Amino acid sequence: MNRTIDWDGDAIAILDQTLLPGEERVLRLRNVEELAEAIRSLRVRGAPALGVAGALGVALAVREARHVRAEADRAAALLSATRPTAVNLSWGIELARAQASKGAGAVLRAALELVEADVRTNRAMAELGAGWVAENIATPTRVLTHCNTGALACVEIGTALGVIAESYRRGLIGEVLATETRPLLQGSRLTAWELKRLGIPFRLVADGAAPSVIARGEVGLVMVGADRIAANGDVANKVGTFPLALAASRAGVPFVVVAPESTRDEGTASGAEIRIEERDEAEVLGYAGVRVAPEGAHAMNPAFDITQAELVTAIISESRVTVRR
Amino acid sequence: MNRTIDWDGDAIAILDQTLLPGEERVLRLRNVEELAEAIRSLRVRGAPALGVAGALGVALAVREARHVRAEADRAAALLSATRPTAVNLSWGIELARAQASKGAGAVLRAALELVEADVRTNRAMAELGAGWVAENIATPTRVLTHCNTGALACVEIGTALGVIAESYRRGLIGEVLATETRPLLQGSRLTAWELKRLGIPFRLVADGAAPSVIARGEVGLVMVGADRIAANGDVANKVGTFPLALAASRAGVPFVVVAPESTRDEGTASGAEIRIEERDEAEVLGYAGVRVAPEGAHAMNPAFDITQAELVTAIISESRVTVRR
Repeated sequence: MNRTIDWDGDAIAILDQTLLPGEERVLRLRNVEELAEAIRSLRVRGAPALGVAGALGVALAVREARHVRAEADRAAALLSATRPTAVNLSWGIELARAQASKGAGAVLRAALELVEADVRTNRAMAELGAGWVAENIATPTRVLTHCNTGALACVEIGTALGVIAESYRRGLIGEVLATETRPLLQGSRLTAWELKRLGIPFRLVADGAAPSVIARGEVGLVMVGADRIAANGDVANKVGTFPLALAASRAGVPFVVVAPESTRDEGTASGAEIRIEERDEAEVLGYAGVRVAPEGAHAMNPAFDITQAELVTAIISESRVTVRR
Repeated sequence: MNRTIDWDGDAIAILDQTLLPGEERVLRLRNVEELAEAIRSLRVRGAPALGVAGALGVALAVREARHVRAEADRAAALLSATRPTAVNLSWGIELARAQASKGAGAVLRAALELVEADVRTNRAMAELGAGWVAENIATPTRVLTHCNTGALACVEIGTALGVIAESYRRGLIGEVLATETRPLLQGSRLTAWELKRLGIPFRLVADGAAPSVIARGEVGLVMVGADRIAANGDVANKVGTFPLALAASRAGVPFVVVAPESTRDEGTASGAEIRIEERDEAEVLGYAGVRVAPEGAHAMNPAFDITQAELVTAIISESRVTVRR
């Protein structure tokens, strides 16, 4: 399977990301309940991939429905509740649902168009982003990235990691530092898996260590994705992004966000208004079934944090570079 | 065993911290090589405990030596190489070695005096620190701490966690947030174990999430220990401390360091001169013995970071409160 998520004729096919890097297993999701479980469990994750998943999910739900609009509404409500912070998810859902009055075929066509549009969008971001790196950074450089923003977060290519891969192909990047990204270790599992496949030299670093690595001058660029960008430019992204932006700002290192225009939420004035998803505390208390904290211990587990616009150097989308600082 | 480290008549007894919180096992270290292994493996860790370990290690080495001074020199060289960043370790070693010309008995007396002095020092810090909290913080407050700075980092009581425990007893603290502290999870394993035993309400938080929790106004105080304090007030502490200080500074939340006077290194002008211990990459590539990263992946693993003096609100020792910002 070359795509993270795709339509296979009568089901949604996804690469189960909870099993990586140990196992590459494709799941066929045959109904919207299976998709909702896959989203909640992060078998499919990443803002752009969630947009595609939302649209395909509505298409899947209405395929054999007698009442297409009612079924689209039901699927939309179920799916949008799975991950409240990612704006792309509800954007993809609404894009498909808007076709419901024209019938199930129109919904599926809209969803399939979104799959192809995601690939085009990512390709455009990679080109625009690599051009920005060439013009603005002393290269070859060492870039630090957070979480997973590669092909696994999209249909193909990726957002920040797509730019990094294209920049590497152009000789602009010497090494990638990838944060491990607790609690679910998307960096150690997914980004490392992608970078290894791409043949790009990389090292992992603990989340708590990355800010001081930036402070020590070992990084020429920090590049991350986004789950929602408010009207004022505040960025919601995977928890652990904000300390990287703080350290980059203090060290004078560019901090760049790569995200498609669909990540923009002009209806939200600032980051302070963004609801932060709180996930199961068990994710922090251990990992992969290994309990570390003592019995009875509890945890906070916010999935995202807010980086204020003034800490962001530039936002790169498929159509423009918005310079912030 | 009520003490983390102690002399038991003919060996050094330590609580093996690599097994906590699952198992409480006391190890009897009968020679300096066993102690060096225990220090390198973090079976005994924490700046003050390492000072005591260094002194007891020299005493252990010279006990039946024909040439006390030569044996003290050999033990000092072996032990001081185990953890290069912690200044207390070499301080404890030198304190014991300075008695070598007076014979093995004098060396042991100096080491045993250091054990008792550590307890007195920690008690004095806890009192002074809790008084500072009462005077400077709107209480009861929620305090965030990093790594483990409790009894397990010392002989008894602790540094930052000692102040926190005493402040809790005085009704000044409502809840503790403890970072998990990757890669070795001293927060999830050791601090959680201590807080649970002390009956203090707490939650764990991922290292990457702590800065945004501070930014959201959920914390009234950040309190950490130190492994070395340079002459200009720059603080070397467990990696992940610096982003907490950055976030606290931005949010206007006091960032307080609790460390005995022996942590001061007036011979080092600033944090830029402090050598940062780089530990085995395997610590980052897995979690609690479970390999996470794909085969062939590498990692950076700095054990400490530097927090510049201007980010520190106050340093509390056994004898004084130094206000910085």
